[in-house]
Amino acid sequence: MAIVLGSNRYGKAENRVVRIYRDTDRHEIRDINVSSALRGEFADAYLVGDQSKILPTDTQKQTAYSFSKERGLTSIETYALELGAHFVDTVEYVQSARIEVEEFEWQRVLVDGTEHDHTWVRKGQETRIAAVTVTGSGADRTNAVIGGFKDLVILKSTGSEFTGFLEDGYTLLEPTTDRVMATSLIAKWRFTSTDVEWESTYLGIKKIIIETFATLHSLALQQTLYEMGKAVLEAYDFIAEIRFSAPNKHHFLYNLAPFGVENNNEVFNADDRPYGLIEATVIRDEVPPAPEAWDSYTGLV
Amino acid sequence: MAIVLGSNRYGKAENRVVRIYRDTDRHEIRDINVSSALRGEFADAYLVGDQSKILPTDTQKQTAYSFSKERGLTSIETYALELGAHFVDTVEYVQSARIEVEEFEWQRVLVDGTEHDHTWVRKGQETRIAAVTVTGSGADRTNAVIGGFKDLVILKSTGSEFTGFLEDGYTLLEPTTDRVMATSLIAKWRFTSTDVEWESTYLGIKKIIIETFATLHSLALQQTLYEMGKAVLEAYDFIAEIRFSAPNKHHFLYNLAPFGVENNNEVFNADDRPYGLIEATVIRDEVPPAPEAWDSYTGLV
Amino acid sequence: MAIVLGSNRYGKAENRVVRIYRDTDRHEIRDINVSSALRGEFADAYLVGDQSKILPTDTQKQTAYSFSKERGLTSIETYALELGAHFVDTVEYVQSARIEVEEFEWQRVLVDGTEHDHTWVRKGQETRIAAVTVTGSGADRTNAVIGGFKDLVILKSTGSEFTGFLEDGYTLLEPTTDRVMATSLIAKWRFTSTDVEWESTYLGIKKIIIETFATLHSLALQQTLYEMGKAVLEAYDFIAEIRFSAPNKHHFLYNLAPFGVENNNEVFNADDRPYGLIEATVIRDEVPPAPEAWDSYTGLV
Amino acid sequence: MAIVLGSNRYGKAENRVVRIYRDTDRHEIRDINVSSALRGEFADAYLVGDQSKILPTDTQKQTAYSFSKERGLTSIETYALELGAHFVDTVEYVQSARIEVEEFEWQRVLVDGTEHDHTWVRKGQETRIAAVTVTGSGADRTNAVIGGFKDLVILKSTGSEFTGFLEDGYTLLEPTTDRVMATSLIAKWRFTSTDVEWESTYLGIKKIIIETFATLHSLALQQTLYEMGKAVLEAYDFIAEIRFSAPNKHHFLYNLAPFGVENNNEVFNADDRPYGLIEATVIRDEVPPAPEAWDSYTGLV
Repeated sequence: MAIVLGSNRYGKAENRVVRIYRDTDRHEIRDINVSSALRGEFADAYLVGDQSKILPTDTQKQTAYSFSKERGLTSIETYALELGAHFVDTVEYVQSARIEVEEFEWQRVLVDGTEHDHTWVRKGQETRIAAVTVTGSGADRTNAVIGGFKDLVILKSTGSEFTGFLEDGYTLLEPTTDRVMATSLIAKWRFTSTDVEWESTYLGIKKIIIETFATLHSLALQQTLYEMGKAVLEAYDFIAEIRFSAPNKHHFLYNLAPFGVENNNEVFNADDRPYGLIEATVIRDEVPPAPEAWDSYTGLV
Repeated sequence: MAIVLGSNRYGKAENRVVRIYRDTDRHEIRDINVSSALRGEFADAYLVGDQSKILPTDTQKQTAYSFSKERGLTSIETYALELGAHFVDTVEYVQSARIEVEEFEWQRVLVDGTEHDHTWVRKGQETRIAAVTVTGSGADRTNAVIGGFKDLVILKSTGSEFTGFLEDGYTLLEPTTDRVMATSLIAKWRFTSTDVEWESTYLGIKKIIIETFATLHSLALQQTLYEMGKAVLEAYDFIAEIRFSAPNKHHFLYNLAPFGVENNNEVFNADDRPYGLIEATVIRDEVPPAPEAWDSYTGLV
Repeated sequence: MAIVLGSNRYGKAENRVVRIYRDTDRHEIRDINVSSALRGEFADAYLVGDQSKILPTDTQKQTAYSFSKERGLTSIETYALELGAHFVDTVEYVQSARIEVEEFEWQRVLVDGTEHDHTWVRKGQETRIAAVTVTGSGADRTNAVIGGFKDLVILKSTGSEFTGFLEDGYTLLEPTTDRVMATSLIAKWRFTSTDVEWESTYLGIKKIIIETFATLHSLALQQTLYEMGKAVLEAYDFIAEIRFSAPNKHHFLYNLAPFGVENNNEVFNADDRPYGLIEATVIRDEVPPAPEAWDSYTGLV
Repeated sequence: MAIVLGSNRYGKAENRVVRIYRDTDRHEIRDINVSSALRGEFADAYLVGDQSKILPTDTQKQTAYSFSKERGLTSIETYALELGAHFVDTVEYVQSARIEVEEFEWQRVLVDGTEHDHTWVRKGQETRIAAVTVTGSGADRTNAVIGGFKDLVILKSTGSEFTGFLEDGYTLLEPTTDRVMATSLIAKWRFTSTDVEWESTYLGIKKIIIETFATLHSLALQQTLYEMGKAVLEAYDFIAEIRFSAPNKHHFLYNLAPFGVENNNEVFNADDRPYGLIEATVIRDEVPPAPEAWDSYTGLV
């Protein structure tokens, strides 16, 4: 069998673009980490080192910064769609472009109880993400859009159990009807439309996920994930599927009995490793798959 | 000159204690990373490997967990003072104990606009810290107490300049009268009392620091640090000194001129390295120094 | 369209198993980070919280540690194949098991020029990886095996150029015929056999990759990746494909002209972000694909 | 008591200078992370925002890069001494300069068994460090020089015990006469001369430390640290003191008894946190202290 070039792409990863809107005294800030990757007729660069069809990664960087002013940066999904379309539409040899964005949220500081016009602290909670793959031109154009977040660290101190599991010769775990359940949640959802109010949708999905985590009496992290996903899909008909990756951040009950001290689910060791890791997809039956949507470039999104 | 054993200490670092209060349906959570280090008559362990005066680091760990229940964990300064006193008072060979604490804040989630009783997300902003050094017994007892925070990421998009600086043959920097100023601030303050309302004091100091950062028109990060420190010392007479370490997280104006795009302080590159790093102490004149207060054990606090 | 459970798996991630062989005075050490994930008839855990078909992640952990003694740990590919087969063969509801391994290499210290029997320093260079997916039973059994490494930081100070590239209105980059080329390479290769001398094959592939990087005059990182992959596939007929992910760790020539100092490719700034990121697959034509082989669970492998 | 400005300094941290020597076909590489901090007559910058005595941190950066060519970069101690002296000698308001350096070692790759002229892999073991504080002018000039390393990860699989320790009511630990001992060692030594062969001295000290760790039958990590330090001071009379910080990276024997599997110090869990942390200084009696030598600026060195 011949040896050939297979799947390939290239681009510039992790451009740290900060965009300030200052048209009035009340400034606005958007703070992103954006990466672009191109697929296309690039075989000659690999096979013989011919760069004549290669738009440099430095050029992709310049474009990412300039677009934050030229086109604006108000929703990361819109920004990513415009940047992706630019590469496909203006660079002859590009067949598809993937744009991945992390967004870091800032919160206005209070001065005497009033929000300040131009000072913020970094919010520090979940990182919002978007990944857009723009492919083809004209009638063949497709836009695969992923929204989501990562690193939402959430914990409930009761309302979670784990019992009735399968046992084999390596099973030492004791069942529990009351435990701490905590995770650092990654959630990614796929849109079937680009005619979306991106900001309110993001907040709405996050609200559903958090409220379900809080209020569902959990028999397992698996069940919690499924119910969160189902609730999101019921609420937003333009979401085709949602994927979760949830490390079970173990909080082990600390044994204080040797010291004569009661520990009624009050003192825990927050362990680092190993951790349970649960993955789940909740999806509409018969929705056409979109594998390119999920083909992460940087591993960050 | 003879070769001798000099300064030494040992302990258990980074115990991840999570304490849930669940006496009512409305739970409370405290989440800390606590380290302990002991000084004392330990030369024989170093010189000849004799452990008979060495309380194992594992024992220190057990005590840290148990004290979060036995004594409670409501203010990290109080918890650290009690844990430190325990080692000095109960272990014959211990002359002083240092307890370092990082605290991770959690925020109740909202369900239909109401705070939930037992679910939180990690707040994710600054990490609160405390470092306590308890030395000696009886009338000779001293308690050196540091409070503070690290990693408060704060940014202002105007109201900061940098001009009129010294120039030499390696100076290329252009002065600017309007720039983004951002830092990831570390602030540590030394108490001269242990009769303090720790929680309200922490919030009060943080409020002063943030408000000063926001409202002072800054001629340099140095000036901002000094004014923040001065305002804290003016407000709290039981604070003897405050130390800042402030990386100048450079946001470089991105050059869009080659593309015919105006950039009126609107698009920046948030650079990683190198960074300016400014240190300042603001202190009461003639206050006796307390070098042991600042002698960090883990480097975390 | 109905809302249904899609793809899912669960397991225990990042078990830090250290295995010492001490049958003679000359000990051996293997140091791994192993994760397991199971797919199977687990829908009830997600849909209704029924755990009766769920082997706990804690049990998976116990098995990972015990197998390092029961079966031994000499090659990570063999260990992963045995651990994966165990879950599929002994747990009724498991249809496939994925085992991901990172291995940290240790190097014997020298004492008076002689290798010590039981003391090592961590080698600290690339992390070797393996990922095995064992699916089905009996005649339907398939074993997808990936070997590889990550974080091989390699640099050449000449013998690399980048010229003749495509330009558009955002292109500022100047061509260069002599630059530093550096990357932190990830390489993963897929085996079509399990009858492999894993240790010598690993060393042989790494040798080819390093030697190609060193000796090929590079017209682009793309070309270097392709030539490395081609050389590996030419040498090992049981390798079906190899995938590279290569961040272009930019070393920018530092401008010393303002100081009257020549810089003939002698002084560079090693920049952090952004970075070029090049992906390439080199593959045998007509080899059947094995998507499950590449379906990373932890993101570490 | 009046509120005043106390100790302060400022500079540029983490300049990533890479220096290639290419005078012959066999290139050489030095790869450092260098930081500079200045003390002096800078009160006006803090008190009133007057920058007229402030040499910008950007200027310090330019100088650090340029000096790697102008003065060369062969030993980090020499480079740091020259850079520090430059700031003190040429900038009127500077009273002292501290230069901190991390050095990342590279190893030539082999091609057909021969070292390549211009290709290296990053060595990845300990990071060498230096910290120099240059103070005053003319006859008052002092040079405090620290050399050392951090993150030397070293492990012995036998020849270590821990018994006979003090017990109290929180003591659960069992004594052991055979355990794994591992640490990620930080060692810093203070020179009393600048007339030193820096490269051979570094290698010699590292050799002594490693050989002592390997060959000493250890009754405690404390004892191992002391013996390492004593051996270094006996070998180098221009070393005044050496300081160690040694996390006890616990390798806990894994309990395989429930599975009927023997574990004769063969299978361990490499735990992350908490960890024992041992600090020791070995010093020549009556050597004058040099507190400025140890006053870390970046926390990296």
